[in-house]
Amino acid sequence: MADSDAVYPKVKLNSVNRLRNRGKYDFATIHGLVNKSPVVHVSFASDPSEPFPTILPMIGQMGSFQDPSAGLDSPLDCYLHGYVSSRIMRLSKEAVARGEDGLPVCVTATKVDGYVLALAPFHHSYNYRSAVLHGYAQPVEDDDERVWAMELVTNSVVPERWENSRTPPTKTEMTSTTILRVKIHVGSAKLRSGGPHDDRFDLKDESVRGKYWAGVVPLWEVMGEPIASGDNSVAQVPGYLRDYVQKQNDENKEIALNAARE
Amino acid sequence: MADSDAVYPKVKLNSVNRLRNRGKYDFATIHGLVNKSPVVHVSFASDPSEPFPTILPMIGQMGSFQDPSAGLDSPLDCYLHGYVSSRIMRLSKEAVARGEDGLPVCVTATKVDGYVLALAPFHHSYNYRSAVLHGYAQPVEDDDERVWAMELVTNSVVPERWENSRTPPTKTEMTSTTILRVKIHVGSAKLRSGGPHDDRFDLKDESVRGKYWAGVVPLWEVMGEPIASGDNSVAQVPGYLRDYVQKQNDENKEIALNAARE
Repeated sequence: MADSDAVYPKVKLNSVNRLRNRGKYDFATIHGLVNKSPVVHVSFASDPSEPFPTILPMIGQMGSFQDPSAGLDSPLDCYLHGYVSSRIMRLSKEAVARGEDGLPVCVTATKVDGYVLALAPFHHSYNYRSAVLHGYAQPVEDDDERVWAMELVTNSVVPERWENSRTPPTKTEMTSTTILRVKIHVGSAKLRSGGPHDDRFDLKDESVRGKYWAGVVPLWEVMGEPIASGDNSVAQVPGYLRDYVQKQNDENKEIALNAARE
Repeated sequence: MADSDAVYPKVKLNSVNRLRNRGKYDFATIHGLVNKSPVVHVSFASDPSEPFPTILPMIGQMGSFQDPSAGLDSPLDCYLHGYVSSRIMRLSKEAVARGEDGLPVCVTATKVDGYVLALAPFHHSYNYRSAVLHGYAQPVEDDDERVWAMELVTNSVVPERWENSRTPPTKTEMTSTTILRVKIHVGSAKLRSGGPHDDRFDLKDESVRGKYWAGVVPLWEVMGEPIASGDNSVAQVPGYLRDYVQKQNDENKEIALNAARE
């Protein structure tokens, strides 16, 4: 992290209290986790008449419309797309109409990198990386920002996909697309890597240590061979897609194996 | 589903309104999704002085302490373990002390089965399976239920792991373990499978159809070869673990490929 100011302030809301050495507050770690997750979970108070908050799985990407080339260690907004229920859109619009900053939401991105199997169940754990952001969601109203965010989100699924699909969006597609911009209030990340940490009394007990296997089962996401749709009339899987599948699969595997061996 | 009554009531809180044909309300689908997810996301109102709900990633398993052999199509509670912050535990305890049913929470489990690449960005989608539960969280106070839930959760990571680790828990391990039981109020699931659904005007346009690749990139979780810890003194990866890794990897891949081909 080049810029030492590029961290979220540590306040009560985002402080990692349990196992606090696992907590991280820098922009690059937190924003990077969001951008590498196929899905984020977004929570909001769904209805004043209900005691429950609601969670929606959505696609989320950090970015800056004002400064599109800004890096992960810059202040960024979180753009949300997909599964946009009428409810979260309506609540966001209503909050803005009331002169508020937007709908208060929590956005999380979580990756499990492996199962940590200790001698005792109590010390079983996961290797994982998780990011939590709190902020205010507003609907994106400006057409230029909407198209920019659509490109950001599309290219988050497969890089270069926007230019390799039929663009620009039609007028109907524009009016039917709803995107939320979350202005981030605070954020934090929590990471765990390495093998199991058993108690000394178990490690010194040969009848335990010799009986039960202990270690890490690494876990990662893999993309399979792309399967063309029946309507497809392109002869081969294009290079940008083939390369991405290979590169991302290699990277995912390497992260999980490195986490296990740390 | 043998028992046609084994569904959650469809109320405002859990109704799938957008693309409602993707909605499911049966116990077996919803409970099965939770039990197959390495991680669930749990949302609650974190602090009366904050406008934001908070989300924690946790381990979640559906089960019935009263009827441990109950199937997925039975009424079940959701047991939560891991990442249990003092905050969610304290809030749950306080709610019970006030005579309430517990802390209102939302629990979600999400699997992405593939990236659906259409001709137009607008029709890009994911194949996915997601479950959302709303309910009331209470700390599990009874020791027998706590041990039973610890076994349930441990075996959810790797089947038979409880009997293949050092048990029973020590007194210290028991007092340091916090488990929440969520009594389910309502639940729903949302599923999408199949290839892209483009508009006819794109499908009929050879300059579009011949230029842009369309189809599905299947996505699934894979476990790698188990990596023994430095302290491990068991010569080989045991059979129950090796078999599980192989079986679960095959199942995960099959689900993603089937979803792409539907």
